[in-house]
Amino acid sequence: MYEELKQYITDIPDFPSKGIIFHDITSIIQNGESFKLAIDALYDVIKDIDFDVIAGIESRGFIFGAALAAKLNKGLVLVRKKGKLPRATVSEKYDLEYGQAEIEIHTDAIKKGQKVLVIDDLIATGGTVKAATKLIERLGGEVAATAFLIELKELGGRAALEPYVVRTVMVYEGR
Amino acid sequence: MYEELKQYITDIPDFPSKGIIFHDITSIIQNGESFKLAIDALYDVIKDIDFDVIAGIESRGFIFGAALAAKLNKGLVLVRKKGKLPRATVSEKYDLEYGQAEIEIHTDAIKKGQKVLVIDDLIATGGTVKAATKLIERLGGEVAATAFLIELKELGGRAALEPYVVRTVMVYEGR
Repeated sequence: MYEELKQYITDIPDFPSKGIIFHDITSIIQNGESFKLAIDALYDVIKDIDFDVIAGIESRGFIFGAALAAKLNKGLVLVRKKGKLPRATVSEKYDLEYGQAEIEIHTDAIKKGQKVLVIDDLIATGGTVKAATKLIERLGGEVAATAFLIELKELGGRAALEPYVVRTVMVYEGR
Repeated sequence: MYEELKQYITDIPDFPSKGIIFHDITSIIQNGESFKLAIDALYDVIKDIDFDVIAGIESRGFIFGAALAAKLNKGLVLVRKKGKLPRATVSEKYDLEYGQAEIEIHTDAIKKGQKVLVIDDLIATGGTVKAATKLIERLGGEVAATAFLIELKELGGRAALEPYVVRTVMVYEGR
């Protein structure tokens, strides 16, 4: 449906490592027309979702999260790498291909019972988003849905995020 | 004029180091109403500026840059810390209180003659933004203006950025 948006994505072979094709979204956002198309498409895939606040994942998730939040007059909660948030946080570790990473949310960022839409630019294995959903639930929030501009189907993020709702604008078959 | 927005900023004493009051903008953006007020205020201070594209500085500048770009149907160019952008870049070093840092822009991100509005959440000494203006000009762009939600007056960023136009929403006298 939004496959035509792929023309604005720059595919970079062997980045960040050999055998990986990196789908660079900077080319879609640096152009006013394609950025608008991307935000409109992201809105279109989530417009039936009832939610109170958006959680954007550092740092490209901030871009799409902020644009969507501004469009819909919603708040934006920052999901950041450990050590970046200045106040009291809850944090969650998750596995990477090599090693571990840790993300945090301010403890006052989600109110009990709030419905949260989680946004990032891309879903690969889903590890970061899964950790974000745990943080949201630890604070008493409810994950209304997760949404991404790009889905790398082969990496199985959609299955890893079950039973959460996963919405994506563009799907790539390979990794 | 927008001093009432300060009620949504969380002031954190002695962060990240003793004697510094950190003005935390996460509390303004996580609430839909205050985020809208902040974006509207930022728009209000730049609405007379003629520009083609927004440059947002990593990573809180992405949030305000993306929201404003989405509101105005403009593109958003990412100014990132070294090593984060996947394609060919130009980069610029600048001095920090202790040591140096380096930022980058994709070489194709700014077209010759484009008028660029530089956005970040806060201006302190202006070092990062000054480096960003150099990158924009090296690519043939023109700095239309710089704009920030918060200005820390005592740190002199406004003077450091002369002769560029500097617009800010909220001013704090101390550092």
